[in-house]
Amino acid sequence: MTRINERNVNELRPVQMDVDYLIHPEGSVLITVGQTKVICTATIEDRVPGFLRGQGKGWITAEYSMLPRATNSRNQREASRGKIGGRTMEIQRLIGRALRAVVDLEKLGERTLWIDCDVIQADGGTRTASITGAFVAMTMAIGKLNLTAFPVTDFLAATSVGIVPEIGAVLDLNYVEDSSAEVDMNLVMTGAGNFVELQGTGEESTFTRAQLNELLDLGEAGIQQLIALQKQVLGDVAKRIGEEVESNL
Amino acid sequence: MTRINERNVNELRPVQMDVDYLIHPEGSVLITVGQTKVICTATIEDRVPGFLRGQGKGWITAEYSMLPRATNSRNQREASRGKIGGRTMEIQRLIGRALRAVVDLEKLGERTLWIDCDVIQADGGTRTASITGAFVAMTMAIGKLNLTAFPVTDFLAATSVGIVPEIGAVLDLNYVEDSSAEVDMNLVMTGAGNFVELQGTGEESTFTRAQLNELLDLGEAGIQQLIALQKQVLGDVAKRIGEEVESNL
Amino acid sequence: MTRINERNVNELRPVQMDVDYLIHPEGSVLITVGQTKVICTATIEDRVPGFLRGQGKGWITAEYSMLPRATNSRNQREASRGKIGGRTMEIQRLIGRALRAVVDLEKLGERTLWIDCDVIQADGGTRTASITGAFVAMTMAIGKLNLTAFPVTDFLAATSVGIVPEIGAVLDLNYVEDSSAEVDMNLVMTGAGNFVELQGTGEESTFTRAQLNELLDLGEAGIQQLIALQKQVLGDVAKRIGEEVESNL
Amino acid sequence: MTRINERNVNELRPVQMDVDYLIHPEGSVLITVGQTKVICTATIEDRVPGFLRGQGKGWITAEYSMLPRATNSRNQREASRGKIGGRTMEIQRLIGRALRAVVDLEKLGERTLWIDCDVIQADGGTRTASITGAFVAMTMAIGKLNLTAFPVTDFLAATSVGIVPEIGAVLDLNYVEDSSAEVDMNLVMTGAGNFVELQGTGEESTFTRAQLNELLDLGEAGIQQLIALQKQVLGDVAKRIGEEVESNL
Amino acid sequence: MTRINERNVNELRPVQMDVDYLIHPEGSVLITVGQTKVICTATIEDRVPGFLRGQGKGWITAEYSMLPRATNSRNQREASRGKIGGRTMEIQRLIGRALRAVVDLEKLGERTLWIDCDVIQADGGTRTASITGAFVAMTMAIGKLNLTAFPVTDFLAATSVGIVPEIGAVLDLNYVEDSSAEVDMNLVMTGAGNFVELQGTGEESTFTRAQLNELLDLGEAGIQQLIALQKQVLGDVAKRIGEEVESNL
Amino acid sequence: MTRINERNVNELRPVQMDVDYLIHPEGSVLITVGQTKVICTATIEDRVPGFLRGQGKGWITAEYSMLPRATNSRNQREASRGKIGGRTMEIQRLIGRALRAVVDLEKLGERTLWIDCDVIQADGGTRTASITGAFVAMTMAIGKLNLTAFPVTDFLAATSVGIVPEIGAVLDLNYVEDSSAEVDMNLVMTGAGNFVELQGTGEESTFTRAQLNELLDLGEAGIQQLIALQKQVLGDVAKRIGEEVESNL
Repeated sequence: MTRINERNVNELRPVQMDVDYLIHPEGSVLITVGQTKVICTATIEDRVPGFLRGQGKGWITAEYSMLPRATNSRNQREASRGKIGGRTMEIQRLIGRALRAVVDLEKLGERTLWIDCDVIQADGGTRTASITGAFVAMTMAIGKLNLTAFPVTDFLAATSVGIVPEIGAVLDLNYVEDSSAEVDMNLVMTGAGNFVELQGTGEESTFTRAQLNELLDLGEAGIQQLIALQKQVLGDVAKRIGEEVESNL
Repeated sequence: MTRINERNVNELRPVQMDVDYLIHPEGSVLITVGQTKVICTATIEDRVPGFLRGQGKGWITAEYSMLPRATNSRNQREASRGKIGGRTMEIQRLIGRALRAVVDLEKLGERTLWIDCDVIQADGGTRTASITGAFVAMTMAIGKLNLTAFPVTDFLAATSVGIVPEIGAVLDLNYVEDSSAEVDMNLVMTGAGNFVELQGTGEESTFTRAQLNELLDLGEAGIQQLIALQKQVLGDVAKRIGEEVESNL
Repeated sequence: MTRINERNVNELRPVQMDVDYLIHPEGSVLITVGQTKVICTATIEDRVPGFLRGQGKGWITAEYSMLPRATNSRNQREASRGKIGGRTMEIQRLIGRALRAVVDLEKLGERTLWIDCDVIQADGGTRTASITGAFVAMTMAIGKLNLTAFPVTDFLAATSVGIVPEIGAVLDLNYVEDSSAEVDMNLVMTGAGNFVELQGTGEESTFTRAQLNELLDLGEAGIQQLIALQKQVLGDVAKRIGEEVESNL
Repeated sequence: MTRINERNVNELRPVQMDVDYLIHPEGSVLITVGQTKVICTATIEDRVPGFLRGQGKGWITAEYSMLPRATNSRNQREASRGKIGGRTMEIQRLIGRALRAVVDLEKLGERTLWIDCDVIQADGGTRTASITGAFVAMTMAIGKLNLTAFPVTDFLAATSVGIVPEIGAVLDLNYVEDSSAEVDMNLVMTGAGNFVELQGTGEESTFTRAQLNELLDLGEAGIQQLIALQKQVLGDVAKRIGEEVESNL
Repeated sequence: MTRINERNVNELRPVQMDVDYLIHPEGSVLITVGQTKVICTATIEDRVPGFLRGQGKGWITAEYSMLPRATNSRNQREASRGKIGGRTMEIQRLIGRALRAVVDLEKLGERTLWIDCDVIQADGGTRTASITGAFVAMTMAIGKLNLTAFPVTDFLAATSVGIVPEIGAVLDLNYVEDSSAEVDMNLVMTGAGNFVELQGTGEESTFTRAQLNELLDLGEAGIQQLIALQKQVLGDVAKRIGEEVESNL
Repeated sequence: MTRINERNVNELRPVQMDVDYLIHPEGSVLITVGQTKVICTATIEDRVPGFLRGQGKGWITAEYSMLPRATNSRNQREASRGKIGGRTMEIQRLIGRALRAVVDLEKLGERTLWIDCDVIQADGGTRTASITGAFVAMTMAIGKLNLTAFPVTDFLAATSVGIVPEIGAVLDLNYVEDSSAEVDMNLVMTGAGNFVELQGTGEESTFTRAQLNELLDLGEAGIQQLIALQKQVLGDVAKRIGEEVESNL
């Protein structure tokens, strides 16, 4: 059995990042991964939440949402239901935490970065596309601050890997693959190849350590390809990240 | 004093409607009016709300939302606040009511049309752009039902008009014009030139009957231009609306 | 076919305004329009909302509610549902906006006027009765401030007009007429005869410009009768409004 | 020291009950106790809550609310706050429980009685005035059902008693007295002189058994006066209550 | 007919109070009354709510909750429902009010005491067990403040009494007795034998003054036994309460 | 530098499981891990959520909460805030998902298992203690169903591992260790040694694949010790799990 569209098990879907997609935000990108499309924006606010006030440190927080018809059948809006669901909460906490791992919050100063990831169209991998796009929007917004010490310490991207029946371990699952997967894993890694987040779940199933290693190998390779694309679209700002990484060595 | 971008007082901003913008919904369009961009989708559900059950009639309901950075400064999400604001409520009730005026709900049968208008970028006139785009998405979705009697009785579009200091009555205000306007009016009209909705408001100001008439003249002309565009993008489906209007005569 | 109670098409229902209806508020009135009864109160608070602080300007905000059995069948309380419905939101925003059009907020100073309109009994026209009554309660409350420059610039009243099948254009619809109306319009006008708000809606129907003009003629005449009544019940305070209008000429 | 308005310690404030105060509800009364005014309505619904379905028994439930300016300073609406406060909850549970004690729910049949008590003006004793008025509205509504076996088993009224510094035990406290009271007690009793509810509270204070007995004596006498008034305003329906009490003996 | 477990009508269930049950709170106790178990904790916060700020007085507030399976069938969590029910509100207001009656809030100083009563297992009498336990937790927490003037003015405990069919008046009802009771009364009293709260309710029933007196006699005796136990578990801190009572004489 | 209490890096804290801790639930346990204490209960409901109805399959859902003073400073109740926080959502979704991985939902039949984990005292590792305890409570409850085919397919337990500055990789972090950890990982594994969940997070930090492997080794060993304890406390029911695992081979 082969994958949909004859994709190889270690092959990403086509990825595109349209930067400066919107006119208002300090940083914005429309990231397209196969049929998944997410608008990521970064907003800079010149103050921090109460628990950080007066410490000279910044903060990064993220919100995630899907348009009602981003999916095949219509989802009720969370605003209509009057509360944010558990899945949304989990995803937006993950995005914020992941970005904070590659930003020196002291160099950012007393500012809050608001990251908004709005899924326009969903076909699997919306949370990892959100992280990959959010990193670009965030870096663009930080670039406009003209800080002398650049706070972004490394590149950051995310992808999913999983175990699909009759195929085995695959990279970057679309919705159909994800629905049938026995194991689903989201990986967030840095340009240096380190882990930031690793969330593996057996879906009414379990997995062995050997399977874990196979999944990690696939994911690492995919993430480095995404980071190569981020470098291209970020242009000059990407170089500032590079300098920072070197000066840390 | 002249208008921004040297626009004439009776001139619409450039309008574009990208139909089938998304893969999942039964009808979808990205409508662009100047810098204002709204994704409009139509979803067909094979049942009606409780108050209509068993009456052989359909229903049309609309939801409206803005991405947090559709605007110049970031707006808190209504899902985060846990409730939908008054402005949003007003707009989504207006959109639904306007569409219902040009659909024969009995011909629609026991179905609900869910209209979603999500503002990706805002620069004034988001509610009127939503109505104009929603009509297109709705008509596309109804077209796919292959009903023998086509329920859409006429075209429908909307625009804003207003009185701006030192300029006077103008058509299709952008955000800067709208912010300074003394009178703000939203018009929804049909292809036959009839009114569906007319909402005029003095903003800490009032207006005379002569001014009202001047605004109505501007609005009528603008709406007919929008309807001409709707006909183009709707293609064959547009012809079914035409037939219906004729058979009603 | 004739109207209920043999009313003429251009005839208001009997109107009564009991001022100082309650002992606690700074201004209060029970307005009765036919069988519709609304308690309107005005409360003065010596501070303004955050967005106005330090600008030397005042603010006017309104809330509207119906007792559960103001209507023929019982409505669930919005407090029990835990949220305010769209219709209520629309009405309270309308009341506040209308009143602000005839008050010089700078002359009011850094104060908030809270207007409460509570419908005790409903028989059509509750939002327009609320505006007409709220103007009286507000003016009474402002009168007690003893300001040297009186902030109320003109009288303000509201009524509804509509097109009823087999009768045509009528003034001041009661509930039965309103339920069958094809077109429903709410008008808010000043003593000088200018428009403040004009909201016309085709109820699954449309209307022509000729019909619009007929409705406006009916509405204008009805509103001037309501303003004549406001002058009577306001007594001396009414004169202060008059002076202000003259000094503006 | 004497009471406000020279009232005797065992003297009720002037009480008035305007029955059929509203046109829509099955039963309604405006009860006035001194300056306290409450609109009480009773609505009959031909079904019962889920937990009672199919048992052949009815149910009585009550809601209580105050207009924002029923009080000296404006209270925020519970609908605006999005939740019902503890005090309101306590009162509406009390009203429902008290009424259920004098209604044979089996004779009522599978019906729900919705009692609404809306305080138009508050000057102490709003919960006891609500109970006294609600009994009248409820009995009127039940009377209209024309049931062969009348479900109301006895009269029911309520009043407050309390211990005020420098005066001692007093009947029917107004707001000023209630604010200074060391002990506050609400009594609900039947025409037969039995207790239904008795809630005594030391307000940062305590009370002895002798004081309790003094308060109960005052309250019992006051309640019998209120029941005499209920008999007058209820007219013929009151007689049906009498029959029922006798046939129970 | 005799009581469950052959208990006498005037006999409390076995009572146990495990003090310092948790490591984090300033005061904590697990109170066991028969099968009813409640964890009571007291937290001291060095500030007061807004309405008390700057008056040199403290405040005591209480929260009450039940674990979902404290009861025989599972109760939905109030956090999941998104709101606190009326019964919970009533109980937590009662606990706070009762404790404030025996604490000199001025001697407490500008501090808030947060009392949390969490029912681990319920078998009737959870609110009265909460009060009895909360008094112990509160007194322990206040003891740790080492104030020169001890703010607790007297002991405080609570129990329930009721009238059960075929048995009559009984002390300290368990769940089965409470479910069948015609009259249910909660009593809160001090070491000096004064009333703080007295809440008697006929459950679709009424009661006479003679029955009231019988219930009060049972309750008073039971409460003095509970206070004797409180003295034991509080040890040295109990003596400080005694001194205070004496110096008040 | 050594660990608190001189614990070895691969040493669990003392673990205790008190089964049948409460009288009402079908399964209950108080699990103690060091100073962390969680009451876990399992409730069986004879129906499934809407999305599963008629499929012959069961469901397992979990809720998690902390008492306000489970922690060093008091946390506001989620019921008081009116919504469940993101952390709680994440944890209760994790518990439910983990348990479902070792239960054959078809063998369970159309039943819902409600798992409640209430943290009485927190000192790190509350989510993993909840999973380990919940497995015990769930298995006890399922045991009482006397099903012929036992639905629990394997044992399940969880622990945390992390990287602490100056110490390195450690097993079963308490609160102080967790607060300083650079990497925090939660592991859920089966008796067969397979992974069910693996969630590793760099806390404003990252980790290498070598570090990941070190953490996994520590966690696997700890989990097998926890499962050995589960076998002891489950007694005969544990044997039924064993049979099932064998018959699957």
